[in-house]
Amino acid sequence: MPAPAEFDNLRVVLVATRNPLNLGAAARAMSNFGFLTLRVVNPYHVAFREARSAVGASAVLKAAEEYKEIAEAVADCALVVGTTALRSRELQHTLRPLETSATLVRKHLKSQRVALLFGSEKVGLSNQELSHCHWLIRVPTREQHPSMNLGQAVAVCLYELSRSVGTKLPAVKQRAATAGEIERITSVLLESLRASGYLSPQPAPSADAKIRRLVRRLHLQAEDAGVCLGMLRQILWKLRSQ
Amino acid sequence: MPAPAEFDNLRVVLVATRNPLNLGAAARAMSNFGFLTLRVVNPYHVAFREARSAVGASAVLKAAEEYKEIAEAVADCALVVGTTALRSRELQHTLRPLETSATLVRKHLKSQRVALLFGSEKVGLSNQELSHCHWLIRVPTREQHPSMNLGQAVAVCLYELSRSVGTKLPAVKQRAATAGEIERITSVLLESLRASGYLSPQPAPSADAKIRRLVRRLHLQAEDAGVCLGMLRQILWKLRSQ
Repeated sequence: MPAPAEFDNLRVVLVATRNPLNLGAAARAMSNFGFLTLRVVNPYHVAFREARSAVGASAVLKAAEEYKEIAEAVADCALVVGTTALRSRELQHTLRPLETSATLVRKHLKSQRVALLFGSEKVGLSNQELSHCHWLIRVPTREQHPSMNLGQAVAVCLYELSRSVGTKLPAVKQRAATAGEIERITSVLLESLRASGYLSPQPAPSADAKIRRLVRRLHLQAEDAGVCLGMLRQILWKLRSQ
Repeated sequence: MPAPAEFDNLRVVLVATRNPLNLGAAARAMSNFGFLTLRVVNPYHVAFREARSAVGASAVLKAAEEYKEIAEAVADCALVVGTTALRSRELQHTLRPLETSATLVRKHLKSQRVALLFGSEKVGLSNQELSHCHWLIRVPTREQHPSMNLGQAVAVCLYELSRSVGTKLPAVKQRAATAGEIERITSVLLESLRASGYLSPQPAPSADAKIRRLVRRLHLQAEDAGVCLGMLRQILWKLRSQ
């Protein structure tokens, strides 16, 4: 699906990122989900240079803008949202679960720019950095292991932001086999079972009915029914050619 | 939040992973979202050893089980779901968007084991590997850049699986056949088809994969799987006693 135009209003802001692989991973997830504007604040310099010059660095990463201060990086945004793995008791901000946050952010994106901030790998966003945010998003991770890898946190947040925008994938339209096709399979199967000695040579209504019900529980599609019938006919022919 | 007990029924299966960082990242996302059983199939050996012995390797990674074949790695699972970045026209399987897939997988997790497969970084799951799957999940990425980083794909899928826990879902009533049971049926069927002349005596991977997919589309219940296996064994015995 093409990304909706309002995705252009999002700025993903990576603050004090240390690891070039994480910069690359964040940029890749942005490209996957259709958010193309990356801003980096005060990155570890070697990391940023290395990531940008890497073979196969994405267009997102190459176009990334560098800032010294968060205030500059978010200056054109009407809403600034931070991300955190912390619990609410440790924070001064309103903390919203990712799912409701995404709905709210999408509403803003319709008409104005929104910055989404991710802190450094080791410590996340500091109190000073958080002070630029209107409110915070928490990804619902386990209490025993709340802290996510940076690239994965970016991927999950952007997935949630994009998830209910997409067009539904069309359902697979397969024709179910008709009762006639199913019955032909049943009867060749019954003959094969008699020829092999699985069923006794004399038809027994109750055994036959059991097999008949089993074949119907398979809910065969028309095409598969054709293949099954072909296989069984060949097996029956071989059994009889002894 | 603590992970619900049914999360223990998920097996995350990484197939032919090359990069130790991706193994580590996948394990970390699993721990973040509360899915703790990792299985690796035929990983690049150096990568697996390196990732497992890394300082700070997670408990998930340390406990990871290694397999040579997908069939073994999913043998105890009643549902096997693959992940792909491809479009439906290139695939033989039913393709479901991640959101609906997650609901379906969670239903199964209530009562039975489910395997979630991720392919290698370069090529994803091959046709032969996909033939072990009942159906496939597609993460809704942009058409211009559909292919996700492996660790990020794992994170996004597990996030979606964990996100609406708490909504009531009815458990699946009948016990589905396990992948091990289905694979036994597949292999006796393949032998019978060769013995009957339907397939040529030399195994042909693409023909085998076609049959393997067909058997999985039958969604056999455990009891029916037992009956089918008995029928096929008798037929094979008879075909060979000629």
